[in-house]
Amino acid sequence: MQNDKHSANIKDVAALAQVSTATVSRFLNGNLNRMSDATAERVRVAIDKLKYVPNSAARQMTTKSSKLIALIVANTDDYFSTELFKGVSSILESNGYIGTMLDSDSDLQREKNLLAAVNSHTFDGLILQPFSTISTIENIMRRRAPIVIVDRETPQSPWPQVVTNNFDAAREATAYFVKRGFSHFIVLTSDLSAATNRRERYRGILAAATNVDVLEVSEASYNHRDIHEKLIQLLTKTDERTVIFALKERWILEFVPNLVLQGYIDNVKATATGFADTAVSRRLEPKMKLISQNPFLLGASAAEVMVQALKDGGEQNDDVIVVPAKFK
Amino acid sequence: MQNDKHSANIKDVAALAQVSTATVSRFLNGNLNRMSDATAERVRVAIDKLKYVPNSAARQMTTKSSKLIALIVANTDDYFSTELFKGVSSILESNGYIGTMLDSDSDLQREKNLLAAVNSHTFDGLILQPFSTISTIENIMRRRAPIVIVDRETPQSPWPQVVTNNFDAAREATAYFVKRGFSHFIVLTSDLSAATNRRERYRGILAAATNVDVLEVSEASYNHRDIHEKLIQLLTKTDERTVIFALKERWILEFVPNLVLQGYIDNVKATATGFADTAVSRRLEPKMKLISQNPFLLGASAAEVMVQALKDGGEQNDDVIVVPAKFK
Repeated sequence: MQNDKHSANIKDVAALAQVSTATVSRFLNGNLNRMSDATAERVRVAIDKLKYVPNSAARQMTTKSSKLIALIVANTDDYFSTELFKGVSSILESNGYIGTMLDSDSDLQREKNLLAAVNSHTFDGLILQPFSTISTIENIMRRRAPIVIVDRETPQSPWPQVVTNNFDAAREATAYFVKRGFSHFIVLTSDLSAATNRRERYRGILAAATNVDVLEVSEASYNHRDIHEKLIQLLTKTDERTVIFALKERWILEFVPNLVLQGYIDNVKATATGFADTAVSRRLEPKMKLISQNPFLLGASAAEVMVQALKDGGEQNDDVIVVPAKFK
Repeated sequence: MQNDKHSANIKDVAALAQVSTATVSRFLNGNLNRMSDATAERVRVAIDKLKYVPNSAARQMTTKSSKLIALIVANTDDYFSTELFKGVSSILESNGYIGTMLDSDSDLQREKNLLAAVNSHTFDGLILQPFSTISTIENIMRRRAPIVIVDRETPQSPWPQVVTNNFDAAREATAYFVKRGFSHFIVLTSDLSAATNRRERYRGILAAATNVDVLEVSEASYNHRDIHEKLIQLLTKTDERTVIFALKERWILEFVPNLVLQGYIDNVKATATGFADTAVSRRLEPKMKLISQNPFLLGASAAEVMVQALKDGGEQNDDVIVVPAKFK
């Protein structure tokens, strides 16, 4: 029997279990339909006794493929991110790949660390909701694995991108409210400078309205009561009909329900809208018209682009695919 | 120059860039501080020209470690799952590992597929919020990588577990309301038979109250209006003071706000409580007392157990670590 637990190999297991190495291999790969229960049990016992560690890195050498795809999202706490991941996983799995999610936590340095980790590990590809610039990503991603950019359109990307029509969707929603007599807009957003999609949305609002206040909320740290009171000040500073326009669903869920309960949002003097995808926001009364992005579809589309690149041996173009948002 | 894009190796790159293979290796590992910009650029150009693919599987062979840990959660759309992941990632990263999240989507077969994928890939360990029984997990996980069970206490686990005191927390919260004159409880839950933590919570409620209705909501498919109306029927069928007890935060967010707006939940005739961790539930008016699990801490604790197992060469015990929930 082996004493060094790192040295047992598949032949040792086969010898102890009195089976062929092919049988051990079938066992390890979960291919049990040509094997009796007794045989499977003998193999299991032999593996346990020898503390045999099948070397998946060695198995990978033969295929040069891990079948793992990394999705780096900005914040896993956002429903947008997790639905994006569900869309990605769904398409990947039907093509024999496995989606795994990593969380940059809206932190540029953390995103860089994750990119370096993805670069140095055995991922077959990367789908990225980026904070970093293209040159930063290029500097870190040294391997030739396919990359797909998702959600945040990034200038000069050499890789394909799957994004929402942020500018048009925000402009159209704003124009809708202007037409109905709302002239004052409060843009409720995380740091505008940090993400291209937020800036595009803000530009869209400015393209259709002139009286626009901006209230930035730091994702890392904010005081709920302060923001709530600032919103009330902004809502009551004018007689104009006002729209609170949240660039992110979290800020709707966080601030709108209590403004409704306190009577500030009544759909007459003031209403709220924004980018929102969960059922929770849609079920608040009074009903608000919201912009839905369909993050599942964005993720599925990004995964389809990834699967195609993998089929094409890593060849990629710099197409921008737009999945339109819906205002309803 | 190479024509077959798969055949270039590190020596070809070094020769074309006129540097040593050690320099190419340093470049690939992002170790640029002993390298001029011009040298780095020559290496980059050589890699591009030769379409050189550094074989990370080969690099892994030397260490037999990928530094990747898989976390399989029940549903990435739940804040509980994503905070669990943030806790896991935080501890793993400070120990040189990378956390990746996979989503079983509350589907037993899907969980089995993911377990098989984790088993056959180069993950150093698995943290699992399980649906499967221990014997199913053992049958699939053939490699000797460490496993930690989280959130759902699983009988006969040979691996360490990090869980909440579900029974005690539910019983204590129920007793609190009974003492204040609430005698009728409506348990709002996903499929009770599917997860041990739900059953423990239900048992805890039954240990402190007798008039208990159960309303099960299917996560895969439910009609919001139907459930809303059933809740109103159950709330109004008795003169007893009633508590809606949600075993999962999603059902609070989904059904409680409109019951508040319609006057059914006033903290006098009826109130609501449940397991909830986001700020959104805590900010609903009137204020409800809720049970907080601290999923970040659960994840961080599970990751600490994992890191210790990895340091101990994979040796594990079957300790059950309880992270107590708070009722406030």
